[in-house]
Formats: sequence, structure tokens, C-alpha cells
Amino acid sequence: MKVAGLGQCSLDNLFIIDSFPKPDTKKEVIDWTTAGGGPVATALVGLSRLGIDCSFYGITGDDEAGKKIADSLKAEDVDIKGLIVRPQSCSQVAFIAVEKGSGRRTIFWKRPSAAPLKPEEVPGDFLDNTDFLLIDGLMTAASFHAVRKAREQNIPVMLDAGSMREGMIELAGLCDYVVASEEFGRELFGNSGTFDAEAAVRHMCSFGARASTITLGDRGSITIAGDEVFRTPAFRVKVVDTTGAGDVFHGGYIFGLLKKWDIKDVVRFASAFAALKCRQLGGRAGIPTLRETEDFLSAHV
Amino acid sequence: MKVAGLGQCSLDNLFIIDSFPKPDTKKEVIDWTTAGGGPVATALVGLSRLGIDCSFYGITGDDEAGKKIADSLKAEDVDIKGLIVRPQSCSQVAFIAVEKGSGRRTIFWKRPSAAPLKPEEVPGDFLDNTDFLLIDGLMTAASFHAVRKAREQNIPVMLDAGSMREGMIELAGLCDYVVASEEFGRELFGNSGTFDAEAAVRHMCSFGARASTITLGDRGSITIAGDEVFRTPAFRVKVVDTTGAGDVFHGGYIFGLLKKWDIKDVVRFASAFAALKCRQLGGRAGIPTLRETEDFLSAHV
Repeated sequence: MKVAGLGQCSLDNLFIIDSFPKPDTKKEVIDWTTAGGGPVATALVGLSRLGIDCSFYGITGDDEAGKKIADSLKAEDVDIKGLIVRPQSCSQVAFIAVEKGSGRRTIFWKRPSAAPLKPEEVPGDFLDNTDFLLIDGLMTAASFHAVRKAREQNIPVMLDAGSMREGMIELAGLCDYVVASEEFGRELFGNSGTFDAEAAVRHMCSFGARASTITLGDRGSITIAGDEVFRTPAFRVKVVDTTGAGDVFHGGYIFGLLKKWDIKDVVRFASAFAALKCRQLGGRAGIPTLRETEDFLSAHV
Repeated sequence: MKVAGLGQCSLDNLFIIDSFPKPDTKKEVIDWTTAGGGPVATALVGLSRLGIDCSFYGITGDDEAGKKIADSLKAEDVDIKGLIVRPQSCSQVAFIAVEKGSGRRTIFWKRPSAAPLKPEEVPGDFLDNTDFLLIDGLMTAASFHAVRKAREQNIPVMLDAGSMREGMIELAGLCDYVVASEEFGRELFGNSGTFDAEAAVRHMCSFGARASTITLGDRGSITIAGDEVFRTPAFRVKVVDTTGAGDVFHGGYIFGLLKKWDIKDVVRFASAFAALKCRQLGGRAGIPTLRETEDFLSAHV
């Protein structure tokens, strides 16, 4: 089975501190690492660890970060023939301060100077022999192009809706699955008042997807599929870092869909897959194997 | 002329933000860079740009940061034959958030796992043909060893006193010049009460150095030489980043001493040299040439 993903990729520098310091002070770092990141890129790494063939479509600059981003995908057997390196441009990078124990993070991120992927840069055959497409909507024109191609070929599409942007609702209307962050859910109602996750996910249902889910961090997730709304609790693990947990959730979700599991089993698997990721610093180091995830699920029936 | 330096070196990742974010939020970075750092290492880079031969003695791990630290010194013609690479160890790294406009910085720093330089790792001939030694006291045993060797050979020594540590006062007593941070000055009196820079520098005089200076950031510096105490104002420049300004001040100070200038001219030169550094992000990119510093001083008589 094969999954194509089109979206953002970045290089994350992550460091653990015992507490967030006051401005203009010094704080000793307990541990640090560098890791590839980006919603679609990390989801594909998750799928690749589960044995799925993956191809990534996106952009980097021609800087050291870009080289590391490419290497981080190659090392996980993600096909990067569709990763375009823009000359004289900078890749997206992030500096992420992770608070020990709480999992709270302060994220300093630098937008890439490299221009977004253009529709004409997506190869005509990019969906050949492909069973699923994942997009994050961050490169609008290319995302619409890719989704329309997938619809022509009856390939199911998931939108990873991280935050509200121009075109996001229209894009969601073209997708079979919309798996959104709590931030996106809140922004659906203009970020006002108390957040009603069920109202948000019911509203998302109106976009037309077969299933929609909002992830709620350690409060689990809420899903609507057909007429049914259900909550899935988060699994308790010793959290080192939640970076990439949402991305890995998307990877696990797609895996379950490819296996044609019942939607509740799909979300439960995604939830375990994402929880296990949190045991290590960085978006990818902690991503478990299929066996580890199955063992964990068996132990938590 | 030749200067030897023994001390810490690090790799800094610096990023500019418009304001310090609240914990657990996202903040877009305006610009970022990677640069070599460390008090002695950066001072030597400054001296090298002024045309002085420099040799650095210190340690890194055998990681990517260590390689970049070494390259950053080689690129500036600093001799690194005395830089020891420890196997299976990590170099010192820092992540520095610089607030645009204010020059305020929050510094996240990771201690190296590589063990400090040992006295027996300092080559017997390390002071041959050397006119000056700079130490930062961060590797205590090797620092004492180096200073004693310098005294035997009548080579003047400067201590860059960044913060109070065990042995620092005793080490200062062996040095010809002690150029300290405000933090060190405050710690002399146990960090209590209002900071009286003049009292601090007079106290430092009792250690026995020919001249002692406390740097006070944009409030300039205060120096005691013989019986005379004098203040030197800071030059006004458009500050992008003050990282490394103190280190560069030490480099300029040593340059003036090597030229046998009057102590007031020495400090004034160091002050201009350090001010000009602040025009660029990172500890080293902004370090000026001799010509630039002279032109700047001529324009600010």
C-alpha cells in the first residue's frame, strides 16, 4: 500500500528545560536534539515505520536545514523525488523549548523563504498506484490541485487542519477525512467563548467528509462519522515531548483506514500510536513500530 | 604578535523575535543564524581580525556542533592545534532568543558532556613565542596550570571573569588583568543590595592585578589601574544583538595592551570594538576590522 503526502516540512531544534525562564535570563538545558518535522512529513515517517510506502511532495531551501530535512525523510524510507529544493532559499526551522514534566512548549519558528510548491511542480503521475493522499493545506494552490487529482482517481484524501487559513474550509469540503487540531476547532467559531468540541466536530461534519476528528491533546479526541459522535480518551504515558504527536496521530489514523478497520478502532490505534511517540524528545524519535503499538493496545484493553 | 587563549567554546543558535512569548505559545522568528561562541574563543576571533596570531586551547565533543566550532575558528585563522575533540561527547551549545530593539536575550545553554581540558593536555610549548594569555577560568585545573606557566615565562595574563566560581578569586590573584562582567562584580558582594560598581572594582584591585575592569553593558565600563578609577562610556550604535560583546571587548582590550597604549585608550578601543560587534546577529559576524574601529573612534572623538 502507498500513501502520498503534500505539505510542509521543517527542521526542529528541541531542548528540554525544567521551567520557562524569565526574559533576559539564562537557563540551563537538560537535553537537546535536532529532528525533522512538519505535519505531513512526520505523518509519513509514522506510516513508513508501519510498513507503508510513502512519497512526500514539498519544498525546502538549499541550506543545511534543507539537506537535513531531506536526509531525515530518506533515512525513514520516505520517497522524496517530489521534494523540490529551491536555490538561494531558506527552509523552515523551529526552536522548541519543552518544559520537563508538563509537556508545555514554546515554539520559535522561522517561515521558509523558499516559495510554496506550485501545482505545475506536482508530477502528473504522482498518484499512480497510490491508495491515500494526506495534505495539510499549508501550500494552498498545490493542495487544491492535488486534492482534485485525487478525487478524479477516487483516491481518498485526509486534510490535516492545523489552523484556519484562507481556503481551508473549501479544501475540507473536498476531503474524505478532516482531522483537525483543537486550535482549528476553536477558530471555526472565531475563537470566542467556551470551546464546545462536540459542536465544533458537528459543524465540521457539514463540510461533507466521511469522518471528522478533533484532537484534544491529553483529553483525547472527538470524532463524527455518519450520525455518530464519539470520544476516544488519550492513553497515559510518561510524556517527554508532545512535538509531532498530532502528526503521528494522522499517520496512525490513515493506517487504520487503509486496513479498513472500524472507525473507532482507527481512532484508538491513532491515539496509541501518538501517545507512544511522546516518550522521546523530538517529533519522530519516539514513533513506535506496529508491534509496539499492538502490544501497547493489547495491554490497555 | 601572538596571543594564546584557554577556555570555553560553544555553538550558538541565535534567533530574533519581536518580543518574548508567553510559555506554551508560538512565536514567529524574524531572522536566525548559527555562530561560534565562548568567551575566549570569540575574543581570539576578534584579535585575529585585528591581525594578531591566535592559538586556542579547549575542548569540544565529537559531534556536529564540535565540528562547526572548530571550523568557525579555522575560518578566522585561529590556530586550533590545542583544541581537543573528545570521543562520544557533546559540545556546548546554546539557543539564544534575541528581542528586537531592546537587545534583551534569553539564553538556553547546554553544558558540554565532554570533560574539561586537563593540565596534562596543555602542550609544554604552548606559550612559546607568545605575548599574552587569555583565560576564562571555566576549566579550573587547566586554567591554573596555564597561568602558572605564563608567570614563569613573564607572559601577561588576562582573566575574563564572567561569573563567580570556585577558585576564581585565587585565579584572579595570579593574573595581570581582570576584566569582569557586571554579574561577577555583583557576586563579589554576594549579589546583595544596590550594586556599587566602583566599590566592586576597588575590591577587585586588591586581588593584585595591574588593572581591573568591570563591563556594564550600555552603561560602559569602570576600570581601576594603579590608584586611578575611571569610567568609559559605551558607544551608541544600532544594536541588533549584544551576544559576544563582552568577549570582543576582551579581545580589543588585549590588542591595546599589546600596542602598549595608555590604559584609557585601551579601554576606549575595546569599547568601540565591542560596540561595533553589536550591529549584527551572533557573537562574531559584526566584529569590525582595525580600520573600521579606528574610523569609528575618529568619528567619535
